[in-house]
Amino acid sequence: MPLTEEHKAEIDAQRGQTQQTARATAPGMEARLYTAHEVLDHGFVRVIDYMGDDAAICQAARVSYGKGTKSVSNDEGLIRYLMRHWHSTPFEMCEVKFHVKLPVFVARQWIRHRTANVNEYSARYSILDREFYIPAPDALAAQSTVNNQGRGELLEGDEAARVLDILKTDAARCYDNYEAMLSQEGQKGLARELARMNLPANIYTQWYWKTDLHNLFHFLRLRADVHAQYEIRVYAQTICEIVADWVPQAYGAFEDYRMGGVTLSTKAIDCVRRMLKGEAVTQETSGMSKGEWREFEGVIR
Amino acid sequence: MPLTEEHKAEIDAQRGQTQQTARATAPGMEARLYTAHEVLDHGFVRVIDYMGDDAAICQAARVSYGKGTKSVSNDEGLIRYLMRHWHSTPFEMCEVKFHVKLPVFVARQWIRHRTANVNEYSARYSILDREFYIPAPDALAAQSTVNNQGRGELLEGDEAARVLDILKTDAARCYDNYEAMLSQEGQKGLARELARMNLPANIYTQWYWKTDLHNLFHFLRLRADVHAQYEIRVYAQTICEIVADWVPQAYGAFEDYRMGGVTLSTKAIDCVRRMLKGEAVTQETSGMSKGEWREFEGVIR
Amino acid sequence: MPLTEEHKAEIDAQRGQTQQTARATAPGMEARLYTAHEVLDHGFVRVIDYMGDDAAICQAARVSYGKGTKSVSNDEGLIRYLMRHWHSTPFEMCEVKFHVKLPVFVARQWIRHRTANVNEYSARYSILDREFYIPAPDALAAQSTVNNQGRGELLEGDEAARVLDILKTDAARCYDNYEAMLSQEGQKGLARELARMNLPANIYTQWYWKTDLHNLFHFLRLRADVHAQYEIRVYAQTICEIVADWVPQAYGAFEDYRMGGVTLSTKAIDCVRRMLKGEAVTQETSGMSKGEWREFEGVIR
Amino acid sequence: MPLTEEHKAEIDAQRGQTQQTARATAPGMEARLYTAHEVLDHGFVRVIDYMGDDAAICQAARVSYGKGTKSVSNDEGLIRYLMRHWHSTPFEMCEVKFHVKLPVFVARQWIRHRTANVNEYSARYSILDREFYIPAPDALAAQSTVNNQGRGELLEGDEAARVLDILKTDAARCYDNYEAMLSQEGQKGLARELARMNLPANIYTQWYWKTDLHNLFHFLRLRADVHAQYEIRVYAQTICEIVADWVPQAYGAFEDYRMGGVTLSTKAIDCVRRMLKGEAVTQETSGMSKGEWREFEGVIR
Repeated sequence: MPLTEEHKAEIDAQRGQTQQTARATAPGMEARLYTAHEVLDHGFVRVIDYMGDDAAICQAARVSYGKGTKSVSNDEGLIRYLMRHWHSTPFEMCEVKFHVKLPVFVARQWIRHRTANVNEYSARYSILDREFYIPAPDALAAQSTVNNQGRGELLEGDEAARVLDILKTDAARCYDNYEAMLSQEGQKGLARELARMNLPANIYTQWYWKTDLHNLFHFLRLRADVHAQYEIRVYAQTICEIVADWVPQAYGAFEDYRMGGVTLSTKAIDCVRRMLKGEAVTQETSGMSKGEWREFEGVIR
Repeated sequence: MPLTEEHKAEIDAQRGQTQQTARATAPGMEARLYTAHEVLDHGFVRVIDYMGDDAAICQAARVSYGKGTKSVSNDEGLIRYLMRHWHSTPFEMCEVKFHVKLPVFVARQWIRHRTANVNEYSARYSILDREFYIPAPDALAAQSTVNNQGRGELLEGDEAARVLDILKTDAARCYDNYEAMLSQEGQKGLARELARMNLPANIYTQWYWKTDLHNLFHFLRLRADVHAQYEIRVYAQTICEIVADWVPQAYGAFEDYRMGGVTLSTKAIDCVRRMLKGEAVTQETSGMSKGEWREFEGVIR
Repeated sequence: MPLTEEHKAEIDAQRGQTQQTARATAPGMEARLYTAHEVLDHGFVRVIDYMGDDAAICQAARVSYGKGTKSVSNDEGLIRYLMRHWHSTPFEMCEVKFHVKLPVFVARQWIRHRTANVNEYSARYSILDREFYIPAPDALAAQSTVNNQGRGELLEGDEAARVLDILKTDAARCYDNYEAMLSQEGQKGLARELARMNLPANIYTQWYWKTDLHNLFHFLRLRADVHAQYEIRVYAQTICEIVADWVPQAYGAFEDYRMGGVTLSTKAIDCVRRMLKGEAVTQETSGMSKGEWREFEGVIR
Repeated sequence: MPLTEEHKAEIDAQRGQTQQTARATAPGMEARLYTAHEVLDHGFVRVIDYMGDDAAICQAARVSYGKGTKSVSNDEGLIRYLMRHWHSTPFEMCEVKFHVKLPVFVARQWIRHRTANVNEYSARYSILDREFYIPAPDALAAQSTVNNQGRGELLEGDEAARVLDILKTDAARCYDNYEAMLSQEGQKGLARELARMNLPANIYTQWYWKTDLHNLFHFLRLRADVHAQYEIRVYAQTICEIVADWVPQAYGAFEDYRMGGVTLSTKAIDCVRRMLKGEAVTQETSGMSKGEWREFEGVIR
């Protein structure tokens, strides 16, 4: 369990304090505010703040003076149109801020999304907690034999036990030594900015992360995808659930056009047309490489 | 007056609708929400939404779980420290969205600030209103004789009258012809995306513009500066007043360290040191060019 | 013709000056350097500089020490793989800088692509030339009757003549008055930063514009698309030809997967699967709206 | 020594291959191309490519057709003017691409500079080398007693020996176990994307990093500063030397106005003015806090 009693009390205090506002308010998001949604063994995602709702997307698209008199169904049609035609600027008009606790190796993938604002807990300034990600049995996988950057079947028996033992023992020893080097009892004590270099990449860090809805969708498309590494995918999936409550119409359009959508190349769409006319297209007659044809067959069957 | 009765009613309706929220709320900003703050002859700035307050800056800097128990004076000290030492990321944790009506030539300067989200009224899709910026007498200035990109003394008498007459007449004629080309009475009617090319740069456009507080401060430092063109400076000044109500501590630090602050070069700070020791430094002994020395004297006297 | 004799001489001088370099060099781009590729009636696109080639994309993807020993066909396969799987960072490792002369209303669309560096000719500092875009007869189109932001059939006869006359006369008068207001003969002369507001949006401006290949492809996908406004599309098409000479493999992959590619929604790909199994899917049984179904039929037939 | 014989041969091969180009060429940078400039115990910085030179900055600022006929001294004056007045866009017209090998904890600070393009060696796809940063004796420092995020005096004797022993032993054991978990001899072998989590933050990674000159200067101002952590500062200092060879005029202006420059607050510049008039200003009469006054005295004495 990632939260101390003190942290829980702070969160409850914030959830309990409400004010009047004339801003756009999303009821589904108010219900989520501040709560720690648990991810992995010690991680979490918390919504700290948000700006806008589905109506705000339409309001920006129309550059309107008020909420307008448009009906909900009109708004949904507009949102789907904007998503379908890659009009991204109205989606940028919503913003969200998360507090995330995550292993460092996940943070290193995450930070590659540059169009976001980040404040990370500083291990130059503070001492990190003794918390490490240790995979659950159903996440302890072998190297994929077909995909150079993926995982295959689960480890079992002795091998699984050996790996878990190594991960736990090395993390514990590295952390013990981190503390020993920092200690100022009977010695000067190594600078925090140096001592941290002894900590393995499964230690947890945390940050405030803020982004707009368009860039969040881009993040989710890549990181909630089946090809993303499991450890970041579970964060993305948690965020998907939150976004579905925040802007249900925009999220619906995103699911339909992006997450579940498929991009076909010139050659692929040409094959579809020929096949729909009754031609029996094969890889040889498709103009595609074997790899592309395999991916194409995966999509249309 | 830029607003129709219909627009006023829409704005009043939004101001009147309040909800409960558990988000950070800034009373000074709630009082500003949606209201049109008039700028120039037909322009305005309206706050549509905001995220965060002074406390949110500190909360992000501390990556904290709740609002924390820190006092207001601690918060102010932290904010001033962050500003002084160029720690910009906590300021990025606040966000604001404006609806702005502004002349096209001002919009062209404004859009150069790239770290922002923009939705502009589309003149491909819609017909622009007949509203043009015509300078007030105290803004009708001659070319500066010392600054290639600035203005000097005011135009007067006949010359001022001639200029105002030209600006009004040309704007009116161009707009009449814009309408005439668009008209579908007795003719096909030119495409809107083409007809707009006949409109001069003092026509008003409008957009939704959203940015974070750090980038807004950067915008304000450049555009509320005395060297900025008057017509964008008045927008920046209006936004300064709004920001002072929104995040008073952050704005205070910004005023002290950025707006009123001065950057001295290696040579200039060296001269200051020598002068404080009693040396009578001149341009010749300063190591500075004449232009730099003139700017330096302007700063220290 | 947009270039003066003096400009031609400056361009020839630069083309004639070559040096030795150990950097990656693209012969197809060297042949293009500095030359003004004409666009519209007075515009142009000139390549001022470039960084990288097809091999540089692969080198970055492999984070390699040298050019590597990989064959050209391996490189092409890697580039196509990167493009197909949206691995965009290696394409960001190529950079290009253009000098572009373009009408202001085109510049206003263009500048919306924020991930680029821009230096525009300053009308605060300098006086703009008397050059305006006047559409050729085959670009003088009526408002589309089906698409709110597009154009339909061509204007003809009297209407075409009237429009051209208006555009030319208004531009000429506005420019005459611009000069009259600036003049310092017998008067003070209006500041340049004010006088420019009298100029219509078809006046030409120019800028240096620099971007990386990934963001350039994004620009080209949107602006060389059939839905883009004609006046920006012709610039994008000229740039497409240049890029095809610069990085032929990357451009080929871009054409196949992006320009000629198609994105199908969850519903649309489901319909394709059902149709390929022999089902006679109609709009009613597709789950799509009429608009989506019409777009879908346009794609697969 | 970080380079294998094979890598050295690849680098030499690239240095030896030169072509003719009509692009702007900087002799000081050609001499640097591809060479590995060593940093820390196993790291390096290599220039892979560059775009532009001092003249290119001026050319962009003038939006000119050719190199222009301006003299070198005119160019230097213009560059200094642009730097002094924060006209950043012309500096964005130069671009540089580095290949950097660096410890992961340094990479984590570095990546926070978002306006750059990055391709990092993938530990999902490949196996990292057994190379760890172990501080040299003169970098092995205790926690600062005055600065929460800095280091103080050097560790000595037994304590230094203990720390070095811990860092070496833990790194070696973690890497041994990394290899053991990956091994497919007699077991399935853990996925690379999981095994990497056992590696400490002083392991070396490498990336291609590309940015423009303006953003590079921003990076250097923060990271070559005396307050930056030593381990990133040595990279920044190496890059400073490279940039000084590439664009000597721009680098000179950067040194004078940014690196060696000082920003004074409204209160501080007011104190300077009063002191120059002969007033004996103290902290009490300065309006500054004790911390600000201490920093101020550090600047002017």
